[in-house]
Amino acid sequence: MSKPLAKAFNCPTEFALSVLGGKWKTILLAYLSERPCSYAELRRLVPKLSDKVLSERLRDLERSGLIVRHTQRGTSRRRTYQLTPRGRSLEPVLRNLYAWGEEHAAAFRVEVGNPLHKLDGSPCAA
Amino acid sequence: MSKPLAKAFNCPTEFALSVLGGKWKTILLAYLSERPCSYAELRRLVPKLSDKVLSERLRDLERSGLIVRHTQRGTSRRRTYQLTPRGRSLEPVLRNLYAWGEEHAAAFRVEVGNPLHKLDGSPCAA
Repeated sequence: MSKPLAKAFNCPTEFALSVLGGKWKTILLAYLSERPCSYAELRRLVPKLSDKVLSERLRDLERSGLIVRHTQRGTSRRRTYQLTPRGRSLEPVLRNLYAWGEEHAAAFRVEVGNPLHKLDGSPCAA
Repeated sequence: MSKPLAKAFNCPTEFALSVLGGKWKTILLAYLSERPCSYAELRRLVPKLSDKVLSERLRDLERSGLIVRHTQRGTSRRRTYQLTPRGRSLEPVLRNLYAWGEEHAAAFRVEVGNPLHKLDGSPCAA
């Protein structure tokens, strides 16, 4: 688990970035801002993360009240994650980051994929 | 110095966050989006960073083409930093992060300061 949030910050940006807490949580929020996703989907979207780290990042996001987890009853006990209203309030930040990345990739001579295209269009497909 | 940027990213958000490269570079950009600042001013704005790390972060931002440094001739050789047009293109992200932090601090029961208020209003005051 990440360290607890400090009680005071030098500026609002420092606080916001501490809640976001690094690259991967922000990326997970960006995917979840598209639509709710199952754990299996998130697993495919961030292949660089280990299961352990992915689970930790998701728990941190739950603790911050940015996402909520639903566990379906049944044999598979599939976990699905979605943004809370507080998580949705980050959508302008997430949209701007995505748009900036798309617009400036060529200037930095890097290739960027769009893994959401690989997913089934239906919400929560696993 | 930070590690070199990868050549390919899984998604535009991952690329954008890699260019931003962590909390402190984003915070420095947020201050510089207000107005150009001298090294001494940035030094006061991010007291948690050591001189070594602050200088490294500024050099990384220069290398990414997000800020430019001007060194004034004379005995003091004062360094002043300002956003480039590419750095300015991040302003919507920076504004949204600041606004989100301001709006949600109370919900997280944290205090956030606004160190820009401490600075002289004139650009580049040191």
